[in-house]
Amino acid sequence: MTFVHPETEEIELAAVLHALSDPQRLRIVRELGACDEPRACGSFALDVGKSTRTHHFRVLREAGVIRQWREGTSRLSTLRREDLDGRFPGLLDAVLAADRVPAL
Amino acid sequence: MTFVHPETEEIELAAVLHALSDPQRLRIVRELGACDEPRACGSFALDVGKSTRTHHFRVLREAGVIRQWREGTSRLSTLRREDLDGRFPGLLDAVLAADRVPAL
Repeated sequence: MTFVHPETEEIELAAVLHALSDPQRLRIVRELGACDEPRACGSFALDVGKSTRTHHFRVLREAGVIRQWREGTSRLSTLRREDLDGRFPGLLDAVLAADRVPAL
Repeated sequence: MTFVHPETEEIELAAVLHALSDPQRLRIVRELGACDEPRACGSFALDVGKSTRTHHFRVLREAGVIRQWREGTSRLSTLRREDLDGRFPGLLDAVLAADRVPAL
């Protein structure tokens, strides 16, 4: 199976905002934003089962927020930081910064 | 009927991103961002019927993105710019700026 990704110029604002509008997906994006290394999907501490986890990664990938690929038996992910910064300057930084602010 | 609004500190990032993740709601927010005057809900050029229009305004209001009130027979709206800037610095500016970039 090959992972499908939108080209940079195909990334849509509404789709990115939708992908980011879920607390579990925000957690994935925040963890990916905290390190530059690719992460295996199974290494994220999410409060969901395997199929929901797969769904969340697919939503992020199809919106153009993350890139996924296989290495051996692992699925690795990285944030498409340059692509997002180029399309929507400041958006990802604002989301990552907001997410560090604890709820009052 | 009184309009219900979240307090500033109750505004949630995921709810704001969800509210902004629809093209019609993005259009409302962009138009509100373009002028500082309150706007009547009926004055927005949206490609939807009246009940869908009401729904979109409610989603924006309940997420804390806009403030709505009645004046006579009109429903007026403004963007909660200060509240959003305080909670999530840079987010609204990034969304409004991104929305001015035409799709390629």
